[in-house]
Amino acid sequence: MLSGARRFHCDDGAQPYHHSGVSAFAEYAVVSRRSVVKIDSDISLVEAALFGCAVMTGVGTVVNTCKVRPGDSVAVVGLGGVGLSSVLGAAACGATRIIAIDLAQDKLDLALQLGATDAFLATDPEIVEKVKAATKGGVDHAIEMAGSVRAFDLAYKITRRGGKTATAGLANPNSQITLPPVNLVGEERTIHGSYMGSCVPSRDIPRFIALYERGKLPVNRLLSSTGPLDEINAAFDLLDQGKVVRHVITF
Amino acid sequence: MLSGARRFHCDDGAQPYHHSGVSAFAEYAVVSRRSVVKIDSDISLVEAALFGCAVMTGVGTVVNTCKVRPGDSVAVVGLGGVGLSSVLGAAACGATRIIAIDLAQDKLDLALQLGATDAFLATDPEIVEKVKAATKGGVDHAIEMAGSVRAFDLAYKITRRGGKTATAGLANPNSQITLPPVNLVGEERTIHGSYMGSCVPSRDIPRFIALYERGKLPVNRLLSSTGPLDEINAAFDLLDQGKVVRHVITF
Repeated sequence: MLSGARRFHCDDGAQPYHHSGVSAFAEYAVVSRRSVVKIDSDISLVEAALFGCAVMTGVGTVVNTCKVRPGDSVAVVGLGGVGLSSVLGAAACGATRIIAIDLAQDKLDLALQLGATDAFLATDPEIVEKVKAATKGGVDHAIEMAGSVRAFDLAYKITRRGGKTATAGLANPNSQITLPPVNLVGEERTIHGSYMGSCVPSRDIPRFIALYERGKLPVNRLLSSTGPLDEINAAFDLLDQGKVVRHVITF
Repeated sequence: MLSGARRFHCDDGAQPYHHSGVSAFAEYAVVSRRSVVKIDSDISLVEAALFGCAVMTGVGTVVNTCKVRPGDSVAVVGLGGVGLSSVLGAAACGATRIIAIDLAQDKLDLALQLGATDAFLATDPEIVEKVKAATKGGVDHAIEMAGSVRAFDLAYKITRRGGKTATAGLANPNSQITLPPVNLVGEERTIHGSYMGSCVPSRDIPRFIALYERGKLPVNRLLSSTGPLDEINAAFDLLDQGKVVRHVITF
């Protein structure tokens, strides 16, 4: 529980913890009232499950943290479930230039299907120059979703004068971002750390589901597969190998 | 000129440059139309001169960049003309806690007269703990106005979870800010570089002068002395020694 208490009891007397504070990946759940969000019952539970962590973080960083507006340019560095959600979020905001960046070509291809207008391999040695040329000096918003300092550095470099660089990636706790203060001030840059996309779940989950129902946020296109709880380890292996984007456990 | 052209001509044929692009520190001026701002003629030219660089940057960082609201807490690290202007700006915004930090006790004393509610010497080894204790976890906005990485580091450390750290200081071009990305994301921090306080001079100079005329932004209290152009070098020496806050050249 959020309080640290345990409310699960097994027949043998064991008291397991509640995974992620919301009793995730379990047949039974005891959750804090504050963790419950009422949603429209027209949506299936498999679809609804997609709106957890990755959509909150990915779409929220675009909508809430960066406040992307129609006509803005957005780059997303790192195209896992979170980064691809940011691509969908940028399209929903009316961004006219959406630049997808990843180490894997298949992720770039998927991003282009989801609304990205340009895609670059992160390994391209001329990527900074190419993004700047494509956007007349850099993007309004560069979003780091890979959880690495190298990805953040790239995001910072492709941000335009006066632009925002946001990160929701949880990099190694021992790593450090380094920034030149003269550039930060002289180019009037903003850096945003985004925790869960600056979301208030009770406000944002119904809002994002309403966008989904109107076809403005097709997060179902991130669903690679579903499977039962007893195959969860195999599903995690596929996630680790980058072979699935989102996988939903069904009961 | 902003264009790089020179429009000054001396009797001997020499063509001096226009200092700071606005022909500052000179008896004659040729400036771009874009550098001219029409102001209320009720204000004296000595008072009006104060609204240049330092007030724009110091007040603008509080008002425009950080968008401080009534009831917010603000810390200012570095109390030169820019930092003391930020103290005045924070008071004008209705900040209820204004924490002044500098290496010199006389600057702290002046800040307290200008509206700061708390003052700490930057050399105090327990300063981070003291500011956090005084503000229940840190300030909403910490503003670095000293132009040094150490001052920025201090400003970052005393910013609360979810708060903003801003810098308008122009540190050594070779220096680097280092940040832990986990803290940036986990505490949903924002870092703002502020160039001239994010000001649009034609919009903000009349706005700040109107506040001054209503007694809400007493920038005249930063005026230490006035003097003629041929004593400018002595005035710069006093500025370098920290013995004056603002000095206006009169003609």
